[in-house]
This record gives sequence, structure tokens and C-alpha cells, in this order.
Amino acid sequence: MEVEIKIKLKEGISDPEGENTKKALRLLGFEDVLNVHILKTFRIKLDDSDEGDAVEEAKEMCKKLLANPVIHDYEIRVKK
Amino acid sequence: MEVEIKIKLKEGISDPEGENTKKALRLLGFEDVLNVHILKTFRIKLDDSDEGDAVEEAKEMCKKLLANPVIHDYEIRVKK
Repeated sequence: MEVEIKIKLKEGISDPEGENTKKALRLLGFEDVLNVHILKTFRIKLDDSDEGDAVEEAKEMCKKLLANPVIHDYEIRVKK
Repeated sequence: MEVEIKIKLKEGISDPEGENTKKALRLLGFEDVLNVHILKTFRIKLDDSDEGDAVEEAKEMCKKLLANPVIHDYEIRVKK
């Protein structure tokens, strides 16, 4: 089974990498770029066949290692 | 319109960040983790209403700035 965990910045937290990517794209001529947000995605293969267990485990991984609760939100999706 | 661009390492390119995340998760007790892959996702808002144009533009962005063709593959998806 594979879980996909998307880590993104919470609303209102500044995203300097996204801002600078927007500036760079505009300088390269992509003038219709309004906004850029950057997310990090972890695709994790688990030796586990129960979907509910996998989601619970992914939540624990976010709490313990993958996400910083002060600035990050996360979305978990089981892929198969 | 929003395009989502996923940048991932090509098959066979080593992913030290993914490997180390796997090791860290296993050390934390998530022993059923088999594999971790890390992707970067750009969510880009465009002032553009044509889906075909948006995809072409996103491809150009990948070629010019967002992806390194030596090591990266990319997937483009139009969101709305």
C-alpha cells in the first residue's frame, strides 16, 4: 500500500520560496503568473494492507517527523 | 486557472533525502516503511482561461526554471 502525504504551509505563513519562484517566472516572461505555492509530497510504501491503519500511521509520521505543526498543514491520501 | 506541476526524480536517480527519511521513520518505530519518495509540487495560479495554453506554458516553465532535465521528470495537471 502507498500513502501520499502532502505538506503545505498554513494559511498566512509567508512562503519566500514560492514568492521568489513567482518573481523568477515573471522575469522569464511568464507575466500571467499570479501566485505560486510550493508543497512537499512524500510517497511512502508501507508493508501494510489495512487502509485505516495506514492513514493513522501516516498521521503519526507527520506529527513525529514530517511536518512542523507550527507552520504546516498536511493532507493524507491512500493510493492503493 | 491553477496548474499543478509535480517534479520528481527520474527512475534510477538516487534520492538521499527519501532514503534518510525512510531511515528516520524506521528508527522512530515505523518499521513497515518500505520506501520513501519525495516530490516537489508547484501550485501556480495563472491569469489565463485556456487549458491547452496553460499546459503549454507550464511545460515551458519546467524547461526554463522549475525542473532539471538531467535528473527530473514532471507531471502537469490543470486544476480548474
